[in-house]
Amino acid sequence: MRVALVGAGPGDPGLITVRGLELLRGCDAVVYDRLAAAELVDEAPHDALRIPRDELTQAQVNEVLVRLALQGLDVVRLKGGDPYVFGRGGEEAAALAAAGIPFEVVPGVSSLAAVPAAAGIPVTHRGVADTVTLATARSADGGPPDYASLAATRGTLVLFMGLARLREVAAGLIAAGMPPETHAAVVARGTLPDQEVVTGTLDRIADAADGLPGPALVVLGEVVALAGRPGRVIREAATMETPGA
Amino acid sequence: MRVALVGAGPGDPGLITVRGLELLRGCDAVVYDRLAAAELVDEAPHDALRIPRDELTQAQVNEVLVRLALQGLDVVRLKGGDPYVFGRGGEEAAALAAAGIPFEVVPGVSSLAAVPAAAGIPVTHRGVADTVTLATARSADGGPPDYASLAATRGTLVLFMGLARLREVAAGLIAAGMPPETHAAVVARGTLPDQEVVTGTLDRIADAADGLPGPALVVLGEVVALAGRPGRVIREAATMETPGA
Repeated sequence: MRVALVGAGPGDPGLITVRGLELLRGCDAVVYDRLAAAELVDEAPHDALRIPRDELTQAQVNEVLVRLALQGLDVVRLKGGDPYVFGRGGEEAAALAAAGIPFEVVPGVSSLAAVPAAAGIPVTHRGVADTVTLATARSADGGPPDYASLAATRGTLVLFMGLARLREVAAGLIAAGMPPETHAAVVARGTLPDQEVVTGTLDRIADAADGLPGPALVVLGEVVALAGRPGRVIREAATMETPGA
Repeated sequence: MRVALVGAGPGDPGLITVRGLELLRGCDAVVYDRLAAAELVDEAPHDALRIPRDELTQAQVNEVLVRLALQGLDVVRLKGGDPYVFGRGGEEAAALAAAGIPFEVVPGVSSLAAVPAAAGIPVTHRGVADTVTLATARSADGGPPDYASLAATRGTLVLFMGLARLREVAAGLIAAGMPPETHAAVVARGTLPDQEVVTGTLDRIADAADGLPGPALVVLGEVVALAGRPGRVIREAATMETPGA
């Protein structure tokens, strides 16, 4: 009886941690996000329970985790990216703690740097950006984010869940004082074989990104201009072979 | 002939990615950071060249990577955390690209969320913090960071490489307007078996953290107060067994 909150990484199944894969391969039940790679869900034992999170509210997810654990099962909660970077892992941890269920948090590779990296963009770079701010395209109450605060950030700004509201967010940031010519990139399906990258300036990025598939990450700042500089970044198809086998 | 810039993760060797471990186990040479786990360096083949990065300048590291690759070797550059989150991976990538060396960037689990998580602190939490700012305790030119900008951030502030200058940084932030009663945590040797966590308020955290070993991460913001709430976070000793074996 235990639960592990496991970060699945940014998309490419090879980017799960060794520890996360080990727990997944030994679990009795996996409750998985839509954003977690299908190849990873397949790594759970054949007879493991597989429960998609899609149709459940957060409260229901919390309840399912507690119930499965109380049935004596070893449960993996497989979450996209990192459980604690906009992953609501803290709420699941609190629910487990309240129910007296032993749990472990296994961090994952967050999209924040991995997805820009897959597009050749380092989120920090000496002399270019020594600060990174992470935010989402909507505030916790579903309204717009605090544009004034975001427009005042230095360095690189990384926006999660920003594709659907990109036009509104770009306009909001410009109205709050961010220069329209700020370098911008949208990386759709980052780290996956069908990744798409669009770059431009903040005032035009919404037009340029029109029609891109989700999920996508928005990167704003001078580091975007470096994408051309490091040249071609080789990306190979992910392999799920056992390392060293 | 190729180079992979591989993120070793935050400390616990089980937190390297599956892809990173696979490359490490197949390499001809590994150039490794002091912060990368010794257990991971041991995963390179017995006859692989092992080159510590410690004694080298960044320019020399770039040159070594290029030279090893031009000798026809498959090289892993094993970096603490993530190569592109304060890891200067962009500079190594640029040097490789300039020399025409094929390279791959394999992201790693950054300390930014993993280390606070190991101390029970989610860097984002619904209703508490929906923005995270990452910075270092000194600017690129070695001077103090931009205190005014950092003091104005919303949400969670995560400071890398902040232990040695913690007293100075706390005073600078308070002078720039950050409330002295801001929740603060220092997590030393995060994710490792000898991890130590100290919490307090910004005005007292330097005293409280006195004598802690490095490396350490500094976390400021209301999320620190959640650390008590999720209860005990189980942390097991890292295992380097082959997953599924």
